[in-house]
Amino acid sequence: MIKLGIVGYGNLARGVECAIAQNPDMELSAVFTRRDPSSVRILTPNVPVLPVEDAETFCGKIDVLLLCGGSATDLPAVTPKFAKKFHVVDSFDNHANIPAHFAAVNAAAAESGHVALISTGWDPGLFSVNRLYASAILPEGKDYTFWGKGVSQGHSDAVRRIPGVLDARQYTIPVPEAMDKVRRGENPDLTTRQKHTRLCYVVAEPEADTKAIEQAIKTMPNYFADYDTTVVFITQEEMKNDHSGLPHGGSVIRSGVTGWDKETTQTIEYKLNLGSNPQFTASVLVACARAVVRMAEKGITGCQTIFDIAPADLSILSREELLSHML
Amino acid sequence: MIKLGIVGYGNLARGVECAIAQNPDMELSAVFTRRDPSSVRILTPNVPVLPVEDAETFCGKIDVLLLCGGSATDLPAVTPKFAKKFHVVDSFDNHANIPAHFAAVNAAAAESGHVALISTGWDPGLFSVNRLYASAILPEGKDYTFWGKGVSQGHSDAVRRIPGVLDARQYTIPVPEAMDKVRRGENPDLTTRQKHTRLCYVVAEPEADTKAIEQAIKTMPNYFADYDTTVVFITQEEMKNDHSGLPHGGSVIRSGVTGWDKETTQTIEYKLNLGSNPQFTASVLVACARAVVRMAEKGITGCQTIFDIAPADLSILSREELLSHML
Repeated sequence: MIKLGIVGYGNLARGVECAIAQNPDMELSAVFTRRDPSSVRILTPNVPVLPVEDAETFCGKIDVLLLCGGSATDLPAVTPKFAKKFHVVDSFDNHANIPAHFAAVNAAAAESGHVALISTGWDPGLFSVNRLYASAILPEGKDYTFWGKGVSQGHSDAVRRIPGVLDARQYTIPVPEAMDKVRRGENPDLTTRQKHTRLCYVVAEPEADTKAIEQAIKTMPNYFADYDTTVVFITQEEMKNDHSGLPHGGSVIRSGVTGWDKETTQTIEYKLNLGSNPQFTASVLVACARAVVRMAEKGITGCQTIFDIAPADLSILSREELLSHML
Repeated sequence: MIKLGIVGYGNLARGVECAIAQNPDMELSAVFTRRDPSSVRILTPNVPVLPVEDAETFCGKIDVLLLCGGSATDLPAVTPKFAKKFHVVDSFDNHANIPAHFAAVNAAAAESGHVALISTGWDPGLFSVNRLYASAILPEGKDYTFWGKGVSQGHSDAVRRIPGVLDARQYTIPVPEAMDKVRRGENPDLTTRQKHTRLCYVVAEPEADTKAIEQAIKTMPNYFADYDTTVVFITQEEMKNDHSGLPHGGSVIRSGVTGWDKETTQTIEYKLNLGSNPQFTASVLVACARAVVRMAEKGITGCQTIFDIAPADLSILSREELLSHML
């Protein structure tokens, strides 16, 4: 049995807990939290919830720690710290800062002889590895990534910070005509506005100026100004009934040419349709934890990414089973 | 530069030759043929075409041999033979016989200290590795593979063997309603007939009994009897103008559940839309040849599959470039 620990207990961690229960070769050993452990109720029976300071007492008793913190301030500190004592997996998703995060984590993991797998999930993660496969196979081509339809938590938070807004949910929606052009191999040059639209459901305070809120959203730099945004005001009850899930998804499409005269168009698309973003991300992290154990057994150390995982190491199946049933 | 050799010179080998020209870290060293070399004209200037018996004289001068023979009788003999002298890549695609082929090739490659990558391309190959990723991430779910719309050369050949048939082209077509059900996460049980239809374009001899030909096609066991098949008679000229390409493609879809009560549906789809089946397969083989060189540098030997390739090894990009631009 692969023994796993979880650091943190938000949406992603709960997804990790559920995913561990779906993998018969894994078990949850402990959850570590910065909150008062007595205030945290987890789903798995007979598993301790402990202060994060106690994690080190589990050295040698846990195979891999899954770090379920946020990318802004949490993981940059937490991942290098735990990589000194454990094999770890994180979902660091700030694309621009990945090289710096890699360097910091690699220094810790290489010195201590651990495997630290960073930036896994679906983007970065599965989308990244599909961009890699597609670009290696079609060196002359162009990549497109479309997100949605799905809830962007960062954009929802941005709307919630506007005065007069009680609650908000922002959906990122890919533009179907743009996707169709890409799928047809037309290799269009697309502006930000041409790729995605944004749809905001907003619960406003009773006396709020909804016109002003709508204006504040649509002109917000970085988040909305470069997009065609639709704002819909709804009741708190409609928000609860119709928008409580966290669906997401998207497509990575590469269109390229082959042939001596580059006369042939070839298109590769990888598409996710996710009922729950955190549960799916968690399922990727848990499969990657299995690969971390296998990589450690091979003597690999240091910071790794999904690019370094031989796919067979993700699977519970033996080589014989993979050859017979999956190849 | 990675020095590559090609054994055979049919459609797949020509695709390999074109793909090598698209990869700036590779060059073609020689083509080996069983035909009279003077009768074979290749596309790349200043590259020798030699009898296959001369291949051994290139030991140490070629990094990887790409074996472009057929799976029925050619590769089972050729791949183990060359794996004794070279790192090799093949596209062995007889799924049921992969374990036996693996064992034979592994015996040769392990003993001689070479890397022999078998059964790569898109199915087996990219479809296989996507089945593996998806099943590792969604352990509770169901896989579906749809092929087409595309030309099946085996089925086209089967029709051509019917008396009175001058030429034939068979298209495999996935049933859109079945794909939609799978994409919606309904996990349907689908019969062979419910998944694909078959469409045959046939050029008949002038005096042929077209009713009898149509009947012979539709009732042919293994190839057509289990499918809804449409037969369309056309002229030799229409065949040449409208059906001379070899397009193909398809989708691997896995739909699974996550969550403590398995309450969430998640769907992963990998979709190929290929203007030329052999050129695309060739592009996969060539990217895999790069990975073979990298694996050999790491000291790996024996028979390998795409399941064993760390994706980074497929790419011309450095780790730094991958982290900055692709993750």
